[in-house]
Amino acid sequence: MDKNSTPPFGGRGAKLEVCLTPALLPLYNVEEYIVVIIDIFRATSSICYGIDNGAAAIIPVSQVEECAAYREKGADYLLAAERNGEVVTGFDFGNSPFAYTAEKVAGKTVVLTTTNGTHALHLSRSAKRVVIGSFLNLTALCNWLKTQQGNILLVCAGWKNNFNLEDTLFAGAVVEQLKAGSVKLDDPAIAANDLYQSGKDDLSGYLKKTSHGERLKKLGIEEDVAFCLNVDISTAIPVLEGEKLVALKDI
Amino acid sequence: MDKNSTPPFGGRGAKLEVCLTPALLPLYNVEEYIVVIIDIFRATSSICYGIDNGAAAIIPVSQVEECAAYREKGADYLLAAERNGEVVTGFDFGNSPFAYTAEKVAGKTVVLTTTNGTHALHLSRSAKRVVIGSFLNLTALCNWLKTQQGNILLVCAGWKNNFNLEDTLFAGAVVEQLKAGSVKLDDPAIAANDLYQSGKDDLSGYLKKTSHGERLKKLGIEEDVAFCLNVDISTAIPVLEGEKLVALKDI
Repeated sequence: MDKNSTPPFGGRGAKLEVCLTPALLPLYNVEEYIVVIIDIFRATSSICYGIDNGAAAIIPVSQVEECAAYREKGADYLLAAERNGEVVTGFDFGNSPFAYTAEKVAGKTVVLTTTNGTHALHLSRSAKRVVIGSFLNLTALCNWLKTQQGNILLVCAGWKNNFNLEDTLFAGAVVEQLKAGSVKLDDPAIAANDLYQSGKDDLSGYLKKTSHGERLKKLGIEEDVAFCLNVDISTAIPVLEGEKLVALKDI
Repeated sequence: MDKNSTPPFGGRGAKLEVCLTPALLPLYNVEEYIVVIIDIFRATSSICYGIDNGAAAIIPVSQVEECAAYREKGADYLLAAERNGEVVTGFDFGNSPFAYTAEKVAGKTVVLTTTNGTHALHLSRSAKRVVIGSFLNLTALCNWLKTQQGNILLVCAGWKNNFNLEDTLFAGAVVEQLKAGSVKLDDPAIAANDLYQSGKDDLSGYLKKTSHGERLKKLGIEEDVAFCLNVDISTAIPVLEGEKLVALKDI
């Protein structure tokens, strides 16, 4: 079938579902979905920003040790490691989006391990396709998703395997753009969209009341948090190819 | 310390948290909480109604076979078994609240197994105390919880280990009555409360859009669903004592 003649997302009653935490991923057959990974504060925001700024690739790894092993590959590799919201000693940088500027990452490969984001990503590897979402690339992501057939699963990285508000709010923002006609939402997608309605007029104010916002404030990264809530400053869509996240070409 | 001199809930910055599905219970040390089990459609609504109508006890069991084993104990035991929303063949009744009238259950012991509710209950057994919540006993439950010290965990039974809207909405209704001053809400509690704000003016209308509401409609139990959304028609609080749910005495 010619690509242009295939129905867009929702054309055949496709499912749009939200997995609220990685702990619930075993309830889904990820093979049946295009998966969007969401870790707003700050992994997927930084990944989008880094790819937009010309990083050749970003390699997500689970363990700090795996990350460190890339050190010997030379200066084209930058090592990013964070645990519990802080840069691991001896690494080039962590999760702050301000580390992913063009000056630092253009042409480089970043090897990244974070608390929650890479965990969700690794659990989703068998999906039809794995892409990365954040407020930075929200509309570009949704416009691409609208052209896809089949089911979509929005996977919230959450916090230590539990639910968090910021990832769910973003999932709700995606639902807002994709819900229409025959698209089938599950209960988590309905809830995420309703939470987005509650918070959309003041994302920053809304998220200030969360436990995570409080925790990030203590870490002195309010500027990072504010940056991660910039909507549509990028059109890059990072996609998983083998072990690497690279810029999606077929937008 | 005299009971009357102890601070009420929240007096020492107690935690009020929401576990969105039984699959997330391993993330909590349930030993540290008073747990409220929530399975709005229909197990915990029926349990509240049955205890209010004079059932001597309700025994939750995990397996249909365990339930059937009570048959030989005689006429004082009523056997209730439901799977996937339907009464199991050969049992006295299932999960419909209309089976739990005074005429049927007064003085009897009901042995109950359901899809989701008893699962959540069994996983929560090691809590400080396990009580049962539904819209039927909402305010009575909250008034009692306000007199308690320590942390409270609202456990949503969900649907097949995943999130559902009706249980979360009820959790949000409890948060609405208990949030105050120094009470610490986690992100799921904040989200549940915001969803309750979205739905509180028309619970029935709000829940009609859920996948579960649609499913229950197909089973022809809209009357049950409507009944389960009656707010404050009961003051009974079922509490787990050993293997049995009985009426809480120290209200």
